Amino acid sequence: MPRITLLTDFGTADGYVGVLKGVLAIHAPLVRVDDISHDIPPGDVEKASLALGRYWRRFPPGTVHLAVVDPGVGTDRRALAVRADERFLVSPDNGILTEVLDQAEEWEAVRLSPSDLLPAPESRTFHGRDLFAPASALLATGNPLEVLGPQVLDPWRLSNSGVRAVGDWVVGEVVDVDRFGNLATNLPRSLVEAVGEVEMAGHWIPLRGSYGEGDPGELLVVINSDGRVEIAEREGSAATLLGVGRGAGVRTKVPAEHPEKEEAGPV
Amino acid sequence: MPRITLLTDFGTADGYVGVLKGVLAIHAPLVRVDDISHDIPPGDVEKASLALGRYWRRFPPGTVHLAVVDPGVGTDRRALAVRADERFLVSPDNGILTEVLDQAEEWEAVRLSPSDLLPAPESRTFHGRDLFAPASALLATGNPLEVLGPQVLDPWRLSNSGVRAVGDWVVGEVVDVDRFGNLATNLPRSLVEAVGEVEMAGHWIPLRGSYGEGDPGELLVVINSDGRVEIAEREGSAATLLGVGRGAGVRTKVPAEHPEKEEAGPV
Amino acid sequence: MPRITLLTDFGTADGYVGVLKGVLAIHAPLVRVDDISHDIPPGDVEKASLALGRYWRRFPPGTVHLAVVDPGVGTDRRALAVRADERFLVSPDNGILTEVLDQAEEWEAVRLSPSDLLPAPESRTFHGRDLFAPASALLATGNPLEVLGPQVLDPWRLSNSGVRAVGDWVVGEVVDVDRFGNLATNLPRSLVEAVGEVEMAGHWIPLRGSYGEGDPGELLVVINSDGRVEIAEREGSAATLLGVGRGAGVRTKVPAEHPEKEEAGPV
Repeated sequence: MPRITLLTDFGTADGYVGVLKGVLAIHAPLVRVDDISHDIPPGDVEKASLALGRYWRRFPPGTVHLAVVDPGVGTDRRALAVRADERFLVSPDNGILTEVLDQAEEWEAVRLSPSDLLPAPESRTFHGRDLFAPASALLATGNPLEVLGPQVLDPWRLSNSGVRAVGDWVVGEVVDVDRFGNLATNLPRSLVEAVGEVEMAGHWIPLRGSYGEGDPGELLVVINSDGRVEIAEREGSAATLLGVGRGAGVRTKVPAEHPEKEEAGPV
Repeated sequence: MPRITLLTDFGTADGYVGVLKGVLAIHAPLVRVDDISHDIPPGDVEKASLALGRYWRRFPPGTVHLAVVDPGVGTDRRALAVRADERFLVSPDNGILTEVLDQAEEWEAVRLSPSDLLPAPESRTFHGRDLFAPASALLATGNPLEVLGPQVLDPWRLSNSGVRAVGDWVVGEVVDVDRFGNLATNLPRSLVEAVGEVEMAGHWIPLRGSYGEGDPGELLVVINSDGRVEIAEREGSAATLLGVGRGAGVRTKVPAEHPEKEEAGPV
Repeated sequence: MPRITLLTDFGTADGYVGVLKGVLAIHAPLVRVDDISHDIPPGDVEKASLALGRYWRRFPPGTVHLAVVDPGVGTDRRALAVRADERFLVSPDNGILTEVLDQAEEWEAVRLSPSDLLPAPESRTFHGRDLFAPASALLATGNPLEVLGPQVLDPWRLSNSGVRAVGDWVVGEVVDVDRFGNLATNLPRSLVEAVGEVEMAGHWIPLRGSYGEGDPGELLVVINSDGRVEIAEREGSAATLLGVGRGAGVRTKVPAEHPEKEEAGPV
């Protein structure tokens, strides 16, 4: 029996998550439901995309990932169901699937459309309840993607920030700040492994093997569990220490003989 | 097999939720347990009542809703089990069931009382563990309500704030602020749909079809997913923008010919 | 079928909890997974130990408690699996099991070591994913503790703060502050029950039967659900009112004839 995972920005204290779970309990009573998070910052589609990108393919084939961060609810933004590398995703079409689509080897998408199976939404303000949860239940109970609506070829994607070559430098940015204040960047891993350090906010920060190396309070660079170049503070928050957040610049100096010097460009 | 849902103000970091789940795992090992929230503000019975009111009837018949926000634990406040519209509720008798009782078509209640089935509480400070979880397990495993204690006819209810007619105005208030800063009010839906706008803190705010209409930063009124008249800010928090919270006044001007003008009064 | 419980400091918004749950869904698809908390303050091993100490033995025999607060990930700190009083615990060896080991009547521990069953970690930064979750799945699906690695006789323990006798006083400290601002102390229960009051920050605070006794805003002492001497404020936060936290001093005056006067010392 498959399972459904939940990612939202609903918080829990208002009871909206209870509504979602109640709808799933009615429509898919035997399916397991796993909370991932309801603490995505309100409306932060980019954060949700990064979180979803971490776990979606760690679940078994057949898993349905419901992801609702939906500031445009009730407008004409589309609602999607996607099959990607044997998992399903159900979400608004607002970029929340960017990481998934970037990682997937193959995917197909449909636009959720009212039908005998999927009644038209009861409200224009809570499509999680009225549309995404019922669609997720249909997929988890074995209905094929195609019954949910017509094919979509162009799901919305957030624009990726690229790295740039500037003289002897490769310049990137912070793409995510996690709960520990670790700063994930888009700098190329191979380059940083070759160079052994990066520069941020006036600090030259050395590459280490793990968060526990160096002295407490010391800044360090690691290759994180996603394979990204990440800046961390030993036993502290690099985000707080450096006073930076998502989008902050970071760079590394390319040695004269390094091939990245010629190749670096928007990714 | 039925399920048990959990709503508390325990937070999670102290491990009290773990204690609840352990007791349920012992007493009802095959019953599914669904977290709704452990983030109700400490002691905020009114918030818990509103949250519970949103989801309790969305779950299948037979579901047991455990709801513990219990500032009076250890005093002589009663402990209740209720059957309402085929669902069960287990909670302190402090008003947390107000919305449920207001919505239910039929209900009956008993006072949880020590018996062979339900041992007297081990402590005077954690009835969630000692009383409410065991009682929930008994209901979820098929015991009838009546075995838990004697009938109660007068569960405690929070007093509802009513709307008032003041001259040409109907005056109500904010009854809930959700995570997005949306302000749910007690203004009559039919009136606001007829008039098309409400007044709050000097702003005339127009009725729209959904949160996504209007320009970013603009205030708007929607009929929310509970059917309430709600004030929201497009891509922002109306609560922050207006600097208001629960209890803040809101009003609308009744057109001369509108029937609400005569009928408005405490609800 | 046993179950796995999760206690971490990951928060939920980064998706790391999703990664853990995905790994468990692959390796132990039929095992129930219960969230306890992902809101332990980052790196706060002591808080995690106290939380775990509250619930670990409330679950049925065979339960696997995964507990990952791991500031030393990637260093040479050991990774442990423990069987204690018929439950299992899987965690870094950093003191997070202190309360469990103090409470257990019997326990044995092994060091998680790479093997055919348990592959070497994929990363040096996310052993929750690469090591602790797979080990938990192995235990929950019936593998014996011994296959996970060689025996460990000296798991790391946090040093317990003791109480001291100082003249006519027994002096202790706050060992935990919970979400309600209640201050759990290490003062001996029997002594406080005999004396009937404690002194903190210049206040003499009387022993009561429950949080609901006394007037709102009044400080009181209760024997809490863990059996500890706890300072609380009626309908408020004692931590806020007194401006104190973990480690703050508290004392009680021993009556001349009380046996604790001679016996008090480090516990």
